[in-house]
Amino acid sequence: MSNLWSSLERAARLHPDAIAVVDGARSYTYREFRARAAALALWLDNEGVKRGDRISILSWNSHYYLECYFAAAGLGLVLNPLNTRLHAREIEDIVRDCGARVLLAQAGFESIERALKEADTPVRLVARLGESLEPALQHWRSGSDAFVPIETDADDVAQLYYTSGTTGVAKGVMLSHRNVLVHAQGAIAELGLSERDTWAHIAPLFHLADAWATFAITHVGGRHVVLPKFEAEGALTLIEASRTTITNLIPTMLNLMVKHPSASGRDFRALRLILSGGAPIAPDVVRAILAVFGCDYVQTYGMTETSPYLTLSLLHEHLKTLPPEEQLAYKCKTGRAFTTIELRVVDEQGRDVPRDERTVGEIRVRGETVTRGYWNRPDETARAFEDGWLKTGDLAVIDAEGYVTIVDRAKDMILSGGENVYSTEVENALYAHPAVLEAAVFGVPDERLGEAVRAAVVLRAETHASAADLIAFCRTQIAAYKAPRAIDFVAELPRTGSGKIQKRALREAFGRGRERAL
Amino acid sequence: MSNLWSSLERAARLHPDAIAVVDGARSYTYREFRARAAALALWLDNEGVKRGDRISILSWNSHYYLECYFAAAGLGLVLNPLNTRLHAREIEDIVRDCGARVLLAQAGFESIERALKEADTPVRLVARLGESLEPALQHWRSGSDAFVPIETDADDVAQLYYTSGTTGVAKGVMLSHRNVLVHAQGAIAELGLSERDTWAHIAPLFHLADAWATFAITHVGGRHVVLPKFEAEGALTLIEASRTTITNLIPTMLNLMVKHPSASGRDFRALRLILSGGAPIAPDVVRAILAVFGCDYVQTYGMTETSPYLTLSLLHEHLKTLPPEEQLAYKCKTGRAFTTIELRVVDEQGRDVPRDERTVGEIRVRGETVTRGYWNRPDETARAFEDGWLKTGDLAVIDAEGYVTIVDRAKDMILSGGENVYSTEVENALYAHPAVLEAAVFGVPDERLGEAVRAAVVLRAETHASAADLIAFCRTQIAAYKAPRAIDFVAELPRTGSGKIQKRALREAFGRGRERAL
Repeated sequence: MSNLWSSLERAARLHPDAIAVVDGARSYTYREFRARAAALALWLDNEGVKRGDRISILSWNSHYYLECYFAAAGLGLVLNPLNTRLHAREIEDIVRDCGARVLLAQAGFESIERALKEADTPVRLVARLGESLEPALQHWRSGSDAFVPIETDADDVAQLYYTSGTTGVAKGVMLSHRNVLVHAQGAIAELGLSERDTWAHIAPLFHLADAWATFAITHVGGRHVVLPKFEAEGALTLIEASRTTITNLIPTMLNLMVKHPSASGRDFRALRLILSGGAPIAPDVVRAILAVFGCDYVQTYGMTETSPYLTLSLLHEHLKTLPPEEQLAYKCKTGRAFTTIELRVVDEQGRDVPRDERTVGEIRVRGETVTRGYWNRPDETARAFEDGWLKTGDLAVIDAEGYVTIVDRAKDMILSGGENVYSTEVENALYAHPAVLEAAVFGVPDERLGEAVRAAVVLRAETHASAADLIAFCRTQIAAYKAPRAIDFVAELPRTGSGKIQKRALREAFGRGRERAL
Repeated sequence: MSNLWSSLERAARLHPDAIAVVDGARSYTYREFRARAAALALWLDNEGVKRGDRISILSWNSHYYLECYFAAAGLGLVLNPLNTRLHAREIEDIVRDCGARVLLAQAGFESIERALKEADTPVRLVARLGESLEPALQHWRSGSDAFVPIETDADDVAQLYYTSGTTGVAKGVMLSHRNVLVHAQGAIAELGLSERDTWAHIAPLFHLADAWATFAITHVGGRHVVLPKFEAEGALTLIEASRTTITNLIPTMLNLMVKHPSASGRDFRALRLILSGGAPIAPDVVRAILAVFGCDYVQTYGMTETSPYLTLSLLHEHLKTLPPEEQLAYKCKTGRAFTTIELRVVDEQGRDVPRDERTVGEIRVRGETVTRGYWNRPDETARAFEDGWLKTGDLAVIDAEGYVTIVDRAKDMILSGGENVYSTEVENALYAHPAVLEAAVFGVPDERLGEAVRAAVVLRAETHASAADLIAFCRTQIAAYKAPRAIDFVAELPRTGSGKIQKRALREAFGRGRERAL
């Protein structure tokens, strides 16, 4: 048996009096964190849930979220973290798909609770996460010392994350106790996590870019600090005030934080490392991160299907002697394989592409942190793998030392006039323009070219640039055929709950529709 | 599939030009190390061995040993490392027990080779590891780039170590690819192993106290340096000349090294950490290690059955502010649970003993680095576990922060006049005497007391102490009932090949026999 409860048990035994969690005015030691999670498990057990049952959670970041992750594991339940930005209808689909019997919901989601009660779903119990749960936790706490996790198999599903659906129907990614534990161990090794670390949960806990740290930081007895909902100034203040040492943020968050007027003049000396993940990041944002926070930076690339890390842009030792700008160039690569992952970049025949950093191939991965598949979807699971390797759908080049650079999602690559145009390269060119706050590049149907390159751009406040200005600027940065043919100025980019830009929505808004209108 | 070949593949991809192995005048980069291991695998494959076959290796430390570990894994073979000090008859028993088809033997073991050929054993091929293998490796090297490991299951047995037999018949401990890989990942995390590290293989590679580093150091792209056979001055010279950063030595080796006349005045500045393992260590030896090497020290405790680490005496952060002597006291504890291990100390009813550092119980462990059992011995396997926990047979106390201190092997504990006497405590008292080089304490039958405490002692060269002197000295250190009743002076202590003192042999030599003679 391997149950990820063991990480919390370990911390409670080795670091009983260390502060485990700080959430606003509340803080708990590891002894208390374990006792609260055990009490929650005893309460859920009393409500009749059984090993293997799915329970969904709908909440902003809070100490309850951390407790739920461990309580569910200790009972052998499958925890289904729900994206807080989903519509009631989408949540209905998910709880139906996975057959969740329980919904744990924070205050503020009453309309969703009502919708679930009215609709025909398997949810039989809706419990409120928050102050109103405290009497129950108090009641069950007396038995918490004696709580032991139920026998589970390492391959049992511990968590079920629905992919945020940039395309198609949401699918439930199954992660086992082993997936999660091996990832935690790998992250501890790669990032040197220890009891000296304080992790800021700023990115949402329903998303693995942040959630993995729940397990790794607990395992080493580090400290969790929690921001309920992202906003730039609150995130900056939390990092400073809590003396956060490490966190993983989503590029859009970092972009907003480094550009926030209150970012400068703060004391970030405790901060040793900022990771970004969940979406590609522009080199100019990385430069701003280094300037504002004065700490190290590492880019991460991952997927829900891989628990999540696939690569980290940690530098090989001999690269640390390079001039700063050259080191930065390596840090802006997607990275080399995460320690638990075997990674290849292959051509359409499945052969490794040359390690010349020019030839583009698809990233395929294998390892103990890779999902065994999608909940109740054997066909989609089978399609996701080839010869035991997960097909990521990401296109990349690889260099002689194994650093990969993603050039595009396979489905976002633009084929224009017979040339492959990788949207990331065009976006980086746009980000280099001082008026550009955010940019997304996509292909639209074009009679002559097959597809034409197009961009949606959010300008910074109090700046101006015309479409012609930006297109001309791009032509100074990249080949003319890669530059956008047209630019759409928008107030904000369409995103999934986890911060990924929905290029499909852009293609629909500015592709066919506009083409017809022209 | 998870095959520990993946660690070598990773290093060859990420650190192709880094020096991987230095063995005397020979050194190989990771590209070459991988190519040599692949060539060896192709040669073995051509010799007709198949997935699951056992192959035995009988060799002092060398680069070939490292290559064999990976070549065997890549072919899905079960590697059986043989203790170089075993008698031909013991080796016959082992190859028969595991059904080894191949013996890879270094020059110098010809008498064993002959004995195996004459006896009725399953060994069909005896191959010489060394210069004479080079033409074959050269021949198969052309195909090495294309070598891919065969499909294995993570639970397949990768290695089979026969316990060195302090009692009873040697049993084959099965370690799977997962056992070995998870241990490597855990050790990387615990010890902060990286490509900056150079590991000295001084303890024998047939024993896990050193062998585990083969996998962990390779995984991170660190450097292996090799000493063929232990002798104190050679070990000191290797550590200094190779700029070794970390190694794990057996206490008897360390004892000889720190007391060697050439130990002082050397440049050990590269050395960051010495681990000791394989047997208990006396606090005075630890003091000498800190003085001679000027690096950090961590005690390890483990078993072949657990890949091997069970505890490390790494200090919790807040203990690092204690005065040096108090820190030393913690470092001399057996340690807290290794990161992949769940550890309990339980009484005879299987309940956790109080964490008061006084109540003695048995250590029981669980985790992904624990063997699934003994080769072809389901009954002994079943007896080794209780409710899924491995019974270590080691008696220990545990403190409030989870540090355990082993007081004795269950079977070595002495019951004298109704009192439990733990031999380790008595040995530590003897080691504090300046004339004592080595000491082993054991119980012998006694009509009045049931058992009487007795000690075998090796005196340092050019020192003198009588039995009465040492007994009187012990009484100044520990309670009178714990002090030895008699002391036997010996030229050397009987040991197993891995350096463990054979107390059974002492009881036989100085127990019944002598009692009858008195």
